[in-house]
Amino acid sequence: MDPATLEALIEVAQGKHPADLVLQGGRVVNVFSGEIEDVAVAIVAGRIAGLSPDPGRYANARATIDLAGRYLAPSFIDAHIHLESTQLWVGEFARIAVAHGTGAVVADPHEIANVLGLAGVRALIDGARDLPLGAFFVVPSCVPASARETSGAILDAAAITPALDWPEIIGLGEMMNFPGVLAADPDVLAKIAAAQARGMPIDGHAPGVGGAGLDAYAAAGMGADHESTTLAEAQEKLRRGLTVMIREGSTARNLEALLPLVNATTAGRCTFVSDDREAATLLHDGHLDAILRLAVARGLDPLIAIRLVTINPARFWRLAGLGAVAPGYFADLVVLDDLRDFRVASVFHRGRLVARDGEPLFDAPNPPPANLRGTMHVAPLAAEALRLVDPGGALTIVGAHPGQIVTTRISERPTVRDGEVVADPARDLLKLVVVERHRATGNVGVGLVRGFGLQRGAIASSVGHDAHNITVVGTNDADIRAAVAAIIALDGGIVAILAGETVAALPLPLAGLLSDRPIAEVAAQHHALEEAARDLGCTAAAPFALLSFMALSVIPAVRVTDQGLIEL
Amino acid sequence: MDPATLEALIEVAQGKHPADLVLQGGRVVNVFSGEIEDVAVAIVAGRIAGLSPDPGRYANARATIDLAGRYLAPSFIDAHIHLESTQLWVGEFARIAVAHGTGAVVADPHEIANVLGLAGVRALIDGARDLPLGAFFVVPSCVPASARETSGAILDAAAITPALDWPEIIGLGEMMNFPGVLAADPDVLAKIAAAQARGMPIDGHAPGVGGAGLDAYAAAGMGADHESTTLAEAQEKLRRGLTVMIREGSTARNLEALLPLVNATTAGRCTFVSDDREAATLLHDGHLDAILRLAVARGLDPLIAIRLVTINPARFWRLAGLGAVAPGYFADLVVLDDLRDFRVASVFHRGRLVARDGEPLFDAPNPPPANLRGTMHVAPLAAEALRLVDPGGALTIVGAHPGQIVTTRISERPTVRDGEVVADPARDLLKLVVVERHRATGNVGVGLVRGFGLQRGAIASSVGHDAHNITVVGTNDADIRAAVAAIIALDGGIVAILAGETVAALPLPLAGLLSDRPIAEVAAQHHALEEAARDLGCTAAAPFALLSFMALSVIPAVRVTDQGLIEL
Repeated sequence: MDPATLEALIEVAQGKHPADLVLQGGRVVNVFSGEIEDVAVAIVAGRIAGLSPDPGRYANARATIDLAGRYLAPSFIDAHIHLESTQLWVGEFARIAVAHGTGAVVADPHEIANVLGLAGVRALIDGARDLPLGAFFVVPSCVPASARETSGAILDAAAITPALDWPEIIGLGEMMNFPGVLAADPDVLAKIAAAQARGMPIDGHAPGVGGAGLDAYAAAGMGADHESTTLAEAQEKLRRGLTVMIREGSTARNLEALLPLVNATTAGRCTFVSDDREAATLLHDGHLDAILRLAVARGLDPLIAIRLVTINPARFWRLAGLGAVAPGYFADLVVLDDLRDFRVASVFHRGRLVARDGEPLFDAPNPPPANLRGTMHVAPLAAEALRLVDPGGALTIVGAHPGQIVTTRISERPTVRDGEVVADPARDLLKLVVVERHRATGNVGVGLVRGFGLQRGAIASSVGHDAHNITVVGTNDADIRAAVAAIIALDGGIVAILAGETVAALPLPLAGLLSDRPIAEVAAQHHALEEAARDLGCTAAAPFALLSFMALSVIPAVRVTDQGLIEL
Repeated sequence: MDPATLEALIEVAQGKHPADLVLQGGRVVNVFSGEIEDVAVAIVAGRIAGLSPDPGRYANARATIDLAGRYLAPSFIDAHIHLESTQLWVGEFARIAVAHGTGAVVADPHEIANVLGLAGVRALIDGARDLPLGAFFVVPSCVPASARETSGAILDAAAITPALDWPEIIGLGEMMNFPGVLAADPDVLAKIAAAQARGMPIDGHAPGVGGAGLDAYAAAGMGADHESTTLAEAQEKLRRGLTVMIREGSTARNLEALLPLVNATTAGRCTFVSDDREAATLLHDGHLDAILRLAVARGLDPLIAIRLVTINPARFWRLAGLGAVAPGYFADLVVLDDLRDFRVASVFHRGRLVARDGEPLFDAPNPPPANLRGTMHVAPLAAEALRLVDPGGALTIVGAHPGQIVTTRISERPTVRDGEVVADPARDLLKLVVVERHRATGNVGVGLVRGFGLQRGAIASSVGHDAHNITVVGTNDADIRAAVAAIIALDGGIVAILAGETVAALPLPLAGLLSDRPIAEVAAQHHALEEAARDLGCTAAAPFALLSFMALSVIPAVRVTDQGLIEL
């Protein structure tokens, strides 16, 4: 802090100068002692100067708000989120997240970096400026996520190292390339060493990794992991020193399985995170408030639960002045009706009221920059591009499972017509096609998938983790071609196709990942897409989320990328 | 870490390359989960590569040690110590501390800085090089501690700021000048801002400060405090965000009063520290091992207690790689016979055995530099220097209390002879004289003190917090003069004088604060001094510790400094 701010805090704390604002009549959540305190909170220069059981200490305040017995807590911090998963521009994300009590996010712009490299990262950072939200960023560590798909950018150690010195960067993003770590890949180690040399935390990502592999991963300096799906996995990671980020996203939901990990001893080593959270989930359910609600409903002490989204993430990421209602901390605060439903009555950022009754009181100042548009660079689809030759025996097929990121390996004799493997909706065997869209390489990967249940038409998306090529699941080649064409025409997006026609669409013209429209519109379009998919016979819940993970080349077991079918 | 070390850890964790050392058969303390694990620990390049329930994973190790069921814990970290209080040269301190399980200390070289400024700090830093002990330093924030005594150096914000950038410096030392903070003193705020600008923790010191004053102090950025003497005081500090460092020193012993603060929720916000620990205490009782023993004897769960001297101090001071037995952490380890007596069977530093059965296995490599000697610059004592004129009524007298740092104010009619106040051993009213010794100013402060009980002679010391002038308590002026002369002749030290003769002495030729002799000799000399003081009639336990606090111008209530009697 500059000496003037220090002086203001010191003077206001002692009642020698008027506070800018006093919040009184509240029940204040103390994340240090695990208590509720009935104290007035004095704010000056955007920070908390003092807390007093006697509001008279701040009688000279310039303004006072009576909280009428509501709870006052630090606003919530999401220690691991990919903003791109909301499909919202960052300003629009902030409006909904802040209204739900979010005060800060640590964003890993891994998706946009796969499309646009550091320019994409820069665009999100710039877009987040001047929002009433603490927007912290990490440099994506794994672009591309693997060599087995084609991304729009390659960020090696030489590329990311300068970005680590950007002032908005607080760490190295999730090291998804755990095989690279375990193999001591020189470029991976160089990235790690660059972050460590700057004293920066490194986020991890090691699904199912335990034993010697986990030790190696932890020894290499990974500080956290959000990929545990079982209690035993999370316990082992916590024992080996990783902060366990308990994920409750739109698709991957691990809270229920992992909650038994959290007790008074271990709580300090855990956070709640959303990782990937869709617009509709944000709109209808909420953000970290929804996770708190769920955790408490499942039996967690609310005063422990709150620590997992306040002081714990602040400490892991070394976010100075965030995560507590205490002298010197930023006045980033939420007012809650209770500690059960966690309904957010109002939100303060730097002592300024920025949301009330679920509505943001601010507009997003920064529109998306032009360089995020026009990212669909697709070579013409050759006539034979979608052909899958009869292997003459069993074929390795992707087993997709709604609600799970992992796939399973199916080996079955496919349906064959005229020497070619064809989709067979009756057997729930659909064509899974991935079309490279960054450099017009003409790469097309083709395979079969089970789990979607489509009976006709096709669905497709330019959101396809992690390289974000065009991913299509279809019942016939003509609709698959139409889907690819529709996405190109939209400059990115998600479509449902029947008989060559687009029956529903969500345009995502920003890097092929994000909408430029308000959340209600995005959620409505997404809902219409899901309805359309159901009309096509799709049986999978959240089919477009499932679709977006079909090319994910870093998580087991079988995938199709633009380079073809791969096994992990 | 450099990529080569990363690679070594990764390979050894997976058993692909041999460990330098494997510690097997131990019961390993996990500070993250609060559990004991029966695992083998593999070490390479001075760090822990992995932990395995199956020692076979590391069958190719270069060396193996069987711990035979003993406990293996992170070596202990003292988050706040003044090395000078041990009166040992830093290398000799390391030998005893490491033998008692200490792996790292955060040293505040406040005392030597009061004598020699940053040159004194530098000397300790250089002296600590190449020891098998993590020696971290903070820059003393309050030299002099106040303007009410004369020190050997003045470190204002301009002076300390460059030192904050020394590589060995990890923070700003205890901000004892809390009145300066509360008054928003510009130089104090500039020091704080300089540390904050570097993201450095700031240690605090706010005895008895609560309410608005505590809020102001915390808001100004103080991160910790070790001065709580009551549970309520410590609770309030913890609530306001300060890490509570529970002190158990040789004189100030707060563990018993503060232990109820520590529970599973609050434990993460607490540490144990020694602050000031004498050679004899180290030799006969121990260091942090002794504090653990006491805490557990008083009922604290040993797995919580260990966190207070391992991961908690490491986290507060951001000591990367210290405080846990986990992959990637330094192999700084203690082997304990049990978790009750905390007898230290052996100690490892960076994977190397450095102490066994209470004996260090290393010599101190760096002798004290010459510039620490010759620091006694005393003007000749004028004939009238020790005179205290009859005030004609009551005199303000220092009430000293063995075992306490605070003094009380006594107002009593002194014994007067020939118009002069005289010592009157029968009433336990002794002369308290402080002679400036840094710049030969000729300053002499004279007052009366009750609490020592001397019946004859005088005791004196060149250790006198915080300016370390010569402090004498005596029954007559002749012996007081002889004591001052003896200390000058020793080039600093502690003496007991009877009838003009030195009856016991501990030479402290290094800055007038430290011996250059082995601990056993220092402790023996100190013991002889205490015996001599007793022979002089002294009733106070630890009279030389008590003596050293008589000029302490930052803690209530009444003191004598070289500038005279002061009240706080």
